[in-house]
Amino acid sequence: MRRPTIADIARAAGVSKGAVSYALNGRPGVSEATRGRILAIAEELGWAPSSAARALSDGRAGAVGLVVARPADVLGIEPFFMRLISGIQSELAGGPTALTFQMAGDLAAETATYRRWAAERRVDGVLLVDLRVRDPRVDLLTGLALPAVVIGGPDGVGALPCVWSDDAAAVREVVHYLVALGHRRLTRVAGPPEFAHTAARSAAFAEVARELGLERAETVHADYSVEDGARVTRRLLAAVPRPTALLYDNDLMAVAGLGVAQEMGVAVPAELSVVGWDDSALCRLVRPALTTVSRDVVRHGAEAARMLLAAVAGGPVPSRRAPAAALRPRGSTGPLERP
Amino acid sequence: MRRPTIADIARAAGVSKGAVSYALNGRPGVSEATRGRILAIAEELGWAPSSAARALSDGRAGAVGLVVARPADVLGIEPFFMRLISGIQSELAGGPTALTFQMAGDLAAETATYRRWAAERRVDGVLLVDLRVRDPRVDLLTGLALPAVVIGGPDGVGALPCVWSDDAAAVREVVHYLVALGHRRLTRVAGPPEFAHTAARSAAFAEVARELGLERAETVHADYSVEDGARVTRRLLAAVPRPTALLYDNDLMAVAGLGVAQEMGVAVPAELSVVGWDDSALCRLVRPALTTVSRDVVRHGAEAARMLLAAVAGGPVPSRRAPAAALRPRGSTGPLERP
Repeated sequence: MRRPTIADIARAAGVSKGAVSYALNGRPGVSEATRGRILAIAEELGWAPSSAARALSDGRAGAVGLVVARPADVLGIEPFFMRLISGIQSELAGGPTALTFQMAGDLAAETATYRRWAAERRVDGVLLVDLRVRDPRVDLLTGLALPAVVIGGPDGVGALPCVWSDDAAAVREVVHYLVALGHRRLTRVAGPPEFAHTAARSAAFAEVARELGLERAETVHADYSVEDGARVTRRLLAAVPRPTALLYDNDLMAVAGLGVAQEMGVAVPAELSVVGWDDSALCRLVRPALTTVSRDVVRHGAEAARMLLAAVAGGPVPSRRAPAAALRPRGSTGPLERP
Repeated sequence: MRRPTIADIARAAGVSKGAVSYALNGRPGVSEATRGRILAIAEELGWAPSSAARALSDGRAGAVGLVVARPADVLGIEPFFMRLISGIQSELAGGPTALTFQMAGDLAAETATYRRWAAERRVDGVLLVDLRVRDPRVDLLTGLALPAVVIGGPDGVGALPCVWSDDAAAVREVVHYLVALGHRRLTRVAGPPEFAHTAARSAAFAEVARELGLERAETVHADYSVEDGARVTRRLLAAVPRPTALLYDNDLMAVAGLGVAQEMGVAVPAELSVVGWDDSALCRLVRPALTTVSRDVVRHGAEAARMLLAAVAGGPVPSRRAPAAALRPRGSTGPLERP
């Protein structure tokens, strides 16, 4: 049951290897009847061209790449990436293109991976996540002439197409809602400041806070992990006066924050409202259930994969705006009862 | 900045393409001085052999494959797989082998993927997860002559090497602990019955329950999802008399169970003890923190990848037993106060 070769097909069909090659490649040199017989035998034997041979003949690797540079223990529990990959796979499923997936320890390891992939023609294109402020990867990929689609933007993507969502609008919606509930001291527990979406959300947060004349509206940074989310929350809740509403940049840190509030005897939502970001299944796992910003990450991944396949095929690929993220209120937010 | 070719190197070095080819392939035909100069220029230009050309010359795809057949929304939040992939990547990182990762809707799609990969020589070997009772994939992969390492076993893996852990011992440890806390009515909320590790844990559970003369010890099945875990828990806690301890096959269902207990007014751990499986970061996110069975999934993945690389290299690969899973007690288990 080893992989069948052209010689096997030739033997079974009683023809030369050259005839099999002509038949399989659709070239003249064999009669239609012989071609039909050879193709039937090839199918029966389960013959397929090797991906290496096909790559040499059509120049395609038959794979697209995704590199994620996050610490392994963050990735292990962060629902965002598995949902994104689910969406990517839903688009690739059944087609001839595979996903090559790589975790990288840091940005240097990530860019080294792109260089190696491009040099080896290991992938036909890549999906870029976690867009940074003045992201060096944009110029690198453009220079390598490796087709790429950015999941993020639309600022700072250069000539690369992107699929993006309006994070600023979602931040404004959340802040307006919290202010309507009586909150005047808000703190945003953001992701790392070097990410472009962090900067976009922070700018929107500062702007709407100014417009609404909030008593306090600061942004602090954490690394998206449970541990860092808990550590930062402990510090914020120990301050006097403490904030009455916390907005987190992912669900994981928000859920960690809920645990810290309980540990410190701060009632949610009577004394503290908590808002996450992503609407992963985590939100419905905890009590009170977590209010969050909802976006369709699976669909986002599928859209990005579709755009990348179009870019690999050489067509023009316009950037796309994904449906806006929206507030999904649950039990972790409410009117301020004990200010 | 397109990918450099042998012609580019020849032009830069002022030699023929043939001389470059001799130099890069370590064959005689150029002087040592010329070879050194050509190699230096090749490195400066960032030249590397294409993966397709290398695959044709050495017969290696330079990739190993992992297919996971679980519903996308389960995968999106199940920490097990991301941790396993982290471990696999930690072993592959920096080396010449990439990971090709595929999600499949069901077993049929999964086996079709192996057939296609083998026919196309898309991967040099695969890692097999979620071993089933009388698993058809074992014979399939053996027949395809595709090197494979099973994460699971040791029963039912045929001639394939496996990395396995002693689940039965862990089940016995948990049950002895719960009985010491005063519990006599235990229910196991297991994964799907077709998985081999589910069957192994169920058999161990029934055996230790018999030995200890428990009043009740049944196993019910769910699909590992939050929703199914919650649904089954609601049914179990509505029964009279209800079980006083629930043992889940993954942390996710256990955390969902904690939420249902709170929703139904059943005090944890005073009236109900809850035990998960895997010791993912979820366990420390919830209140009370979740008692669980701990295993080093990241190390498990690294070990399996190391064994697969050895199998691809053609060496004999003995199966390995991973360090035993062990009970990690936290706040969700305790002495039965109100039986």
